[in-house]
Amino acid sequence: MSDREKLARTLYDALAAGDAATLADLLHPDFVGETTEGLPLDLGGRHSGPEAMTQDFWWAIGRHYRARAEPERMLPLADGGLVVLGRYTGSARDGGAPLDAAFAHVLAFADDERIVGLAQYTDSARWAAALPSPPAGERPFRVVEYTVDGGVATVRLNRPDAGNAIDPTMVEDLYEASFRAGADPSVRAVLICGAGRNLSVGGDLPFFAKLDDADRGSRLRQMTDLYHLALDRFAALDVPVVCAVRGAAAGGGMGLAHVADIVVAAEDAAFALGYAAIGLAIDGANSWYLPRVVGMRRAQEMFLLNRRLDGREALAWGLVTEVLPSDEVEARARALADRLAVGPTAAFGQMRRLLRQSWQTELSEQLVAETDEMSRAGTTADAGEGIRAFVAKRRPEFHGR
Amino acid sequence: MSDREKLARTLYDALAAGDAATLADLLHPDFVGETTEGLPLDLGGRHSGPEAMTQDFWWAIGRHYRARAEPERMLPLADGGLVVLGRYTGSARDGGAPLDAAFAHVLAFADDERIVGLAQYTDSARWAAALPSPPAGERPFRVVEYTVDGGVATVRLNRPDAGNAIDPTMVEDLYEASFRAGADPSVRAVLICGAGRNLSVGGDLPFFAKLDDADRGSRLRQMTDLYHLALDRFAALDVPVVCAVRGAAAGGGMGLAHVADIVVAAEDAAFALGYAAIGLAIDGANSWYLPRVVGMRRAQEMFLLNRRLDGREALAWGLVTEVLPSDEVEARARALADRLAVGPTAAFGQMRRLLRQSWQTELSEQLVAETDEMSRAGTTADAGEGIRAFVAKRRPEFHGR
Amino acid sequence: MSDREKLARTLYDALAAGDAATLADLLHPDFVGETTEGLPLDLGGRHSGPEAMTQDFWWAIGRHYRARAEPERMLPLADGGLVVLGRYTGSARDGGAPLDAAFAHVLAFADDERIVGLAQYTDSARWAAALPSPPAGERPFRVVEYTVDGGVATVRLNRPDAGNAIDPTMVEDLYEASFRAGADPSVRAVLICGAGRNLSVGGDLPFFAKLDDADRGSRLRQMTDLYHLALDRFAALDVPVVCAVRGAAAGGGMGLAHVADIVVAAEDAAFALGYAAIGLAIDGANSWYLPRVVGMRRAQEMFLLNRRLDGREALAWGLVTEVLPSDEVEARARALADRLAVGPTAAFGQMRRLLRQSWQTELSEQLVAETDEMSRAGTTADAGEGIRAFVAKRRPEFHGR
Repeated sequence: MSDREKLARTLYDALAAGDAATLADLLHPDFVGETTEGLPLDLGGRHSGPEAMTQDFWWAIGRHYRARAEPERMLPLADGGLVVLGRYTGSARDGGAPLDAAFAHVLAFADDERIVGLAQYTDSARWAAALPSPPAGERPFRVVEYTVDGGVATVRLNRPDAGNAIDPTMVEDLYEASFRAGADPSVRAVLICGAGRNLSVGGDLPFFAKLDDADRGSRLRQMTDLYHLALDRFAALDVPVVCAVRGAAAGGGMGLAHVADIVVAAEDAAFALGYAAIGLAIDGANSWYLPRVVGMRRAQEMFLLNRRLDGREALAWGLVTEVLPSDEVEARARALADRLAVGPTAAFGQMRRLLRQSWQTELSEQLVAETDEMSRAGTTADAGEGIRAFVAKRRPEFHGR
Repeated sequence: MSDREKLARTLYDALAAGDAATLADLLHPDFVGETTEGLPLDLGGRHSGPEAMTQDFWWAIGRHYRARAEPERMLPLADGGLVVLGRYTGSARDGGAPLDAAFAHVLAFADDERIVGLAQYTDSARWAAALPSPPAGERPFRVVEYTVDGGVATVRLNRPDAGNAIDPTMVEDLYEASFRAGADPSVRAVLICGAGRNLSVGGDLPFFAKLDDADRGSRLRQMTDLYHLALDRFAALDVPVVCAVRGAAAGGGMGLAHVADIVVAAEDAAFALGYAAIGLAIDGANSWYLPRVVGMRRAQEMFLLNRRLDGREALAWGLVTEVLPSDEVEARARALADRLAVGPTAAFGQMRRLLRQSWQTELSEQLVAETDEMSRAGTTADAGEGIRAFVAKRRPEFHGR
Repeated sequence: MSDREKLARTLYDALAAGDAATLADLLHPDFVGETTEGLPLDLGGRHSGPEAMTQDFWWAIGRHYRARAEPERMLPLADGGLVVLGRYTGSARDGGAPLDAAFAHVLAFADDERIVGLAQYTDSARWAAALPSPPAGERPFRVVEYTVDGGVATVRLNRPDAGNAIDPTMVEDLYEASFRAGADPSVRAVLICGAGRNLSVGGDLPFFAKLDDADRGSRLRQMTDLYHLALDRFAALDVPVVCAVRGAAAGGGMGLAHVADIVVAAEDAAFALGYAAIGLAIDGANSWYLPRVVGMRRAQEMFLLNRRLDGREALAWGLVTEVLPSDEVEARARALADRLAVGPTAAFGQMRRLLRQSWQTELSEQLVAETDEMSRAGTTADAGEGIRAFVAKRRPEFHGR
């Protein structure tokens, strides 16, 4: 082991021990640390001087992680520097996933044999993944715009350059949106729509194409699991859901229309499944909704022959509620959402539940369920108001309760 | 206590004891009793003379009820008369509900201090409710006309001024009709229709409006329970059901069309749910049938946006079987019922069962059920006749067995 | 007992004992045996000479059956011959059903009192039924043509003079076809079609008409059991099924279209159930598919009023996928089958499973099932190829795995 290797080992021991005095001895006053840009918690970037590196980087890491840098190999460089290869292992202090990330450190030495530079290369995604996630409802949106306004939560897919294709980030954001819409009592209707020309072209095929063949199954499972959870939550919301479809609603993306009660589509919208063309099965709740919406035979045609429908055909098949010129679609969908948002919200929730469960119950059971909901509805303020307004031939004013 | 109050108390004691001698002493020969008109068992009306009042009223009550009139307050009148306020309590002798009904008696006195008049005010509905109901199949119809003719039972809703709105009486009558149609072996088809301009406008909203907010839930439950039982029975009949729809088939009233196999509708019929407008949930089996008849998306539009369909639209959506000018609807529906009534009734019953259970069974199970029914059908006289007639190219004559 | 009767008895004893020497003594050199034409295993026909009769008939029987000819009555003929009436009893050597068949033998005698002729009359169907059936997959087709070509199994009903009516033989052949299509890994699509002018007119009513009333139920059960098994297998195949409908697809025969994913129909095709006309119930999976394909109301009309649809109406109701002039139907159906046969077969199998199970699962369960299938699909070679081809904007080449 060369002297510089011994020096490096001393550095890693001091870091492991939190030994500030030794670090101060090891680092040259001109020390510069270049750490991986993408590290979370603002850890990444340039740290000038031993003090900055220690306080803002090493001790900052220590506040958030219980982690240890384990050098495994040291490779001398021609310029006298040293490449240290190893792994960070440990965990975040507040829970979260274990940390296990490879690193390469390039150490530079001053003439006085002190360390004057450390360039760090590590997998910042592993560091981020090790941190506990914020709870659902507080996660930041990346590719979905979520706004609440006048009782309407608008969920706008926002990857227009990729046709709002569904990738893991989109799935996380849609789940977050479904969660927030369900948790916010001020939300009395939801509008799902897309930025750019499409609602969604479906799964992000360029992303899928980059996956290893061996890995594709499990990556698809992970992503589909969460996407389906999001769809299930939208379908199970106790408030009405409206979907505006311009451009493509394709493959799994068609599921965003399925979970809505009311779908306003552009004349030139394009509904198509596409699975047959790429050798994949079914996702996006298409196998549950399509037979119930367009009938078994037409569903089979869409699946096996990849039949594509424009807006008018989708209307004729009962797949959408209304068709309009493309530039009127969003305004109309918003107007319907506004109208539903001032409706008898509790009764709407009951209708949604009854319609969804209907397919799994016998007539006699469903009649009992209807009686239960009717009796419950009879006790609401909205029903009292609605009935009185009807008899008085005036417009009711509902408060959703 | 005045003398006349004492006299009154003597009267109530004598009634409680069944003391005929004392009553004879108390009543003036010119005595007239005016009892509440609506009392059941022909008890109400005018009873002239002590003898008539005792035999035809008090003792008649005693034959049907174990009841006691308990005076609670006595209020002297300026003319020397007495108002007695109190309660009848007890029960009917043949079971039934307890009797507990308030009364006001206005007593008039003759100069000789005998009682010469008794005007009775009491809640006759309580008296009627306390009697045991006749068993289903023998209950009188009030707002439904039920006739059987040529193997066809016609069930005609008959509250035309109220648009055949569904209130507790209508529900009881519809249940009675469903019961009779099922119990009468001469009935081989059922026709459901409405008197006046509508089949039914749905729930009787003016009646609902009069209910206390606190009470509305339980009153709706009570009424919906029985209505749903009636619909379930119509749906489960072993004979075909035809429905004629003129005017409105709205809200829960649409259920009368749902339980039919064949629906003949007027071009200007109006199908609409209306729940969203009044803040109520769903009844009338609408949540079971509509998704299965018009598909999920269109059902959602009808529920949440209260989409209204005329006859032609209902035909295009597959909600009705035929559309005709309004004045031809009843005749056509009757002709179809007549045709079905001379069909292979047992096989029709099998079809109805298989179609209804179909939604809850897997393909493989349903195939087994079809085999069972087919094998049973093969043993019927109608099948033998039908097959022989087909091969002989003649018209079959079915007897329903 | 006459001498010739004694001679005959010696013959039957020798046959029972397998006594070749005695047989040789009994038979005249000019002996000719005329045995029942329809006997299985090529036993029937003319056997000239004692040697041929013994080796090719009696010993041949002995190799396949453990059977004994029991003479019961002997009737002398005017020409000196003898009619022997009796029964064959026993069983086939390799399992199968017991053998119990009546016979009449007409024996002729030469002047030297040797037997010179034996004409055998027996029920060859009993002999055939006693043999063990070949296992499914190896049974001969009688009224179905089954061919595999280019990955497409064509199942052509071939009783054109009877409108491809469904009788027990047709049912057995359809079961065999469904079995072979499922067992042959080279089959990647199935085409169902009919020879002559019709797909199938449904149950063979002239055959049903010949059955005893008492027997009809159990004969229908037997036939329907196997027909339904065949339909269930077609529906459960892991490869796409196309059906070409020219002429009638009636009654149970409509089931052949139901189990297909894609149905190409002639403009003048005729879809009708017919059960109501003959007093039978439902078979052919009609009660499972029709409500799911055309909706509940239209299914009821087809069942109870026997509504008949031509090809265009069937298209409008979503019962078929495409409509063409009759003479283009088969070519188009074959082209679609060819196209599907080079598709992603495994994914097609997944779609078929998911669509079929969809009706019995809740949304949440179905989403989990979709995720499972999607994850499995992600591991297939076809998915890798499909995704890469899509991204590269080239045509994918699928191998079905």
